[in-house]
Amino acid sequence: MVSLELHNLTMAKNSNSRSKAATFLSDGFIFAGGTLVAFLLVWAFWSFFTTTPIPSPTFSSTTTTAATDASCPGIAKDPDPLYDPPEKSFYDDPELRYTIDSPPVKNWDEKRSAWLRQHPSFAAGAENRIVMVTGSQAAPCKNPIGDHLLLKLFKNKVDYGRRHGIDVFYNNALLQPRMFSFWAKTPTVKAAMLAHPEAEWIWWVDSDAAFTDMDFELPLGRYKAHNMVIHGWPNLIYENKSWTGINAGVFLIRNCQWAMDFMDEWASMGPQHADYDKWGEILRSTFKDKIRPESDDQSGLAYLLLKEREKWGDMIYVENGYYFQGYWVEIVGTFENTTAEYKRMEAADGRLRRRHAEGVSRSYGRAWAERMRGAGGGRGSRRRPFITHFTGCQPCSGDHNQMYSGQTCFDAMQMALTFADNQVLRNYGFVHPDLHDPSTVEPLPFDYPA
Amino acid sequence: MVSLELHNLTMAKNSNSRSKAATFLSDGFIFAGGTLVAFLLVWAFWSFFTTTPIPSPTFSSTTTTAATDASCPGIAKDPDPLYDPPEKSFYDDPELRYTIDSPPVKNWDEKRSAWLRQHPSFAAGAENRIVMVTGSQAAPCKNPIGDHLLLKLFKNKVDYGRRHGIDVFYNNALLQPRMFSFWAKTPTVKAAMLAHPEAEWIWWVDSDAAFTDMDFELPLGRYKAHNMVIHGWPNLIYENKSWTGINAGVFLIRNCQWAMDFMDEWASMGPQHADYDKWGEILRSTFKDKIRPESDDQSGLAYLLLKEREKWGDMIYVENGYYFQGYWVEIVGTFENTTAEYKRMEAADGRLRRRHAEGVSRSYGRAWAERMRGAGGGRGSRRRPFITHFTGCQPCSGDHNQMYSGQTCFDAMQMALTFADNQVLRNYGFVHPDLHDPSTVEPLPFDYPA
Repeated sequence: MVSLELHNLTMAKNSNSRSKAATFLSDGFIFAGGTLVAFLLVWAFWSFFTTTPIPSPTFSSTTTTAATDASCPGIAKDPDPLYDPPEKSFYDDPELRYTIDSPPVKNWDEKRSAWLRQHPSFAAGAENRIVMVTGSQAAPCKNPIGDHLLLKLFKNKVDYGRRHGIDVFYNNALLQPRMFSFWAKTPTVKAAMLAHPEAEWIWWVDSDAAFTDMDFELPLGRYKAHNMVIHGWPNLIYENKSWTGINAGVFLIRNCQWAMDFMDEWASMGPQHADYDKWGEILRSTFKDKIRPESDDQSGLAYLLLKEREKWGDMIYVENGYYFQGYWVEIVGTFENTTAEYKRMEAADGRLRRRHAEGVSRSYGRAWAERMRGAGGGRGSRRRPFITHFTGCQPCSGDHNQMYSGQTCFDAMQMALTFADNQVLRNYGFVHPDLHDPSTVEPLPFDYPA
Repeated sequence: MVSLELHNLTMAKNSNSRSKAATFLSDGFIFAGGTLVAFLLVWAFWSFFTTTPIPSPTFSSTTTTAATDASCPGIAKDPDPLYDPPEKSFYDDPELRYTIDSPPVKNWDEKRSAWLRQHPSFAAGAENRIVMVTGSQAAPCKNPIGDHLLLKLFKNKVDYGRRHGIDVFYNNALLQPRMFSFWAKTPTVKAAMLAHPEAEWIWWVDSDAAFTDMDFELPLGRYKAHNMVIHGWPNLIYENKSWTGINAGVFLIRNCQWAMDFMDEWASMGPQHADYDKWGEILRSTFKDKIRPESDDQSGLAYLLLKEREKWGDMIYVENGYYFQGYWVEIVGTFENTTAEYKRMEAADGRLRRRHAEGVSRSYGRAWAERMRGAGGGRGSRRRPFITHFTGCQPCSGDHNQMYSGQTCFDAMQMALTFADNQVLRNYGFVHPDLHDPSTVEPLPFDYPA
């Protein structure tokens, strides 16, 4: 018995001795097990919070697959213009049509999302990305001064776009040959939507509209539940049934299925369509103040708001909290006062006077926005008018509304553009001292207007 | 002795029993130790590979300090337009002057570097960042068709810039009132350099120059050791002493001290300077083929290359490997053939025909560049001409060189612009079928020209 116990104890001792090495090994395995679990946890956590890899922007042919790369949440990444994967997208569908005559694209929301998933570098910031679209006729303007004004009005838009990282597409080809003049917008906007799946919004801005507040930023958060933004007064549409209750010359439209369907219906009131004359009658009888006998796009838009509220009207934000576009006649007389007002504010605040790179203008725009909080917008506001629209001036044809003269229109446009240019030239060290004289500039002194 | 051994063995046995709980605990500690070490390794590895934080682009007043954030190497980050720190930069120096009349900025290289350090979100990609500058006179063009052509030529530049992420600044104010016409460039370029410290290069492109290869990218790597790029033939300058040996209408100039000093000297040959008449004589006697009696900026540039090789000439790359700018007379007759050639290549390669977003055009531009490898550039090359320059046409004044008619110039410009527009419109689903007819477009069929 003692022998057995001794034997057992010896075995135990021997197993103790063996287990020193074994213990070391087993401790090692436990340690390694711990590190492995830790790494697995980190990897699982990481995978959960990251999305598809973002390739770095190096040369890649169209057949290169995306390099895998850990993405960096919270860091806005430059869209990669060098990466278009071979996997099929809506572009590879032979049925895709860019023309307004073709039926609306189907499943456009899904197609856009799929494209963004395939091009993850464009996804960051996609929900607020805007492409501005504008344009004019292909032929020279009948008004001798017309193209000169269009050139300056275009420069004005490019200046705004550059400050705000908004691409501008100027179209001067009639995409649907019978959709002339103001009807030319929807063909252009549809084509732009398909060319820019990375853009959430297409911003149509008429050639005769000028940006007169270079710092103001569209309050996109306000439009989350809408698919289109226009300027106007709802009661003027719904109660007064006035065709000028809204303005079709400046609009924001979401790059989505609703918009494709909407534009299809809106365009069907146009001169290329069989129902054009019928629409002329309907719109004249609906809007008693409509002047032109023929169907026009603004009355058409008003009609869709009025008659199809659920389908269209409710998704269209009618903005009048600021000059999303403003009638030049009520604005142009305010430029001098506004200039003086802003000068007073600058004189009182060194931060607003500080020289800086054009590329960080938005930082100062935000400072101005703080100053302007509570100032409202639109008529009577001390805020600079956002967009001054020269409705009725017709700079290209020269066929202005008879209410005012061609000279009045011309002078007003020059003044608005000079007022705007001062906000741009400031970053280049210069100023137009006289708003009526676009030709003259002076160096802007340091710390002006202290 | 047996007792002692028994005791020891019993102790061992007892310690075995105790160590089951203890073993469990100690195993647990070992496991935890493993996970801890793993986490430490991951954290150390992560920290080692990240750099200075990049703030995310949210609202920040000019007094906000940069949010700390792990940066992501290899991922190009969007410059943050909302961040301008309160720490002083060169902008806060009261001595800073934007005007060409003022002495050149001192220590500009250091000042730019300091600004980039203060604005790290602009640093990524800074070494290749270009801002394009162009412009025209403030007053309407004397030539009735002039502003119409300038409008289209400007659209053309904006199209190129949009495809390549290059900002365009159009200036139409004479910054130095006596530096008229072609002399207006250096004042504008100097102001642009100071307004855009984030740009490594300023690219001056004359109003009468058109981009005719929308995909071609400047081979910046070629110019690493130079501070300026112009088109020309060195022997025509150094041997023939011809004032047309180079062209001053399109140039790339590095945003650096050398350029500030160079532009100061170049501008000193201009009409606002006391030595203007003297320079007229010197340049006429140096360049026997100079026509105008007065000093002009192109002869002046040629003179600086010729006479001050070490200081200026050696830092100026005289490019003729491709049409950095090309004389329209030798180009315009090639557009039809080039169109046919590119069509042939597209018909043979589905990848080149593939529809895609405008935003990934550069990916296809690279595919074209591969196809064009070895094709050279410039006269006789099957490559599209990069920039077609309408030297001698004077679209704005209409005072064209008597060698050709105004109609010839006009037709050539329209053709070049239509040729270019086809490359843009493709992404919008359309094409001008006739290069002589800018007004007409047709839908571009799927998989054209298969």
